[in-house]
Amino acid sequence: MKFQKHVFICTNQKEAPKKCCGAEHGAALVAAFRQELTQRGLQKSIRAQPSGCLDACAFGPAVVVYPEGTYYGNVQLADVPELVEKHLVGNEVVERLALDV
Amino acid sequence: MKFQKHVFICTNQKEAPKKCCGAEHGAALVAAFRQELTQRGLQKSIRAQPSGCLDACAFGPAVVVYPEGTYYGNVQLADVPELVEKHLVGNEVVERLALDV
Repeated sequence: MKFQKHVFICTNQKEAPKKCCGAEHGAALVAAFRQELTQRGLQKSIRAQPSGCLDACAFGPAVVVYPEGTYYGNVQLADVPELVEKHLVGNEVVERLALDV
Repeated sequence: MKFQKHVFICTNQKEAPKKCCGAEHGAALVAAFRQELTQRGLQKSIRAQPSGCLDACAFGPAVVVYPEGTYYGNVQLADVPELVEKHLVGNEVVERLALDV
């Protein structure tokens, strides 16, 4: 296991009117996760990166955290510090954003 | 856990002369994995998709399989059936391609 946690953030972009996570918001989420991880000196052990469609389009913006395989939906930039603090550092699922997929 | 196995294939593209996995080859690998999985009727339980840089650029084309977090390097199109058969179906690491990262 190269990383303690590996976070994949959907940056897929489907054509309107299909609901999807969206390239722009996904890229902003990746940047927000990376900034938060770097500020905490965790960027070598926890990686956040863009991915293609995670098959949770209706609940986007979607994020999945491995190795647990926890899916999160409707993730906003303001949620990133809590996801990092509680889940990525504290190993506790953020229930209000977790998807039952 | 939405998928029994979730395969992320780097499709990142860095500017030459940096070594990297490459967008074109990565996209072809994604297509090859999907075709192999669909042929076996596994596309609902095992997902293959593109991702950003997996931080294994020197060993690319790179692939990571979760939930195990097994990294593979120098993955060619001809390796896809073996990776699907042995690892994704059989839960056995394909040692000749596995990266010690």
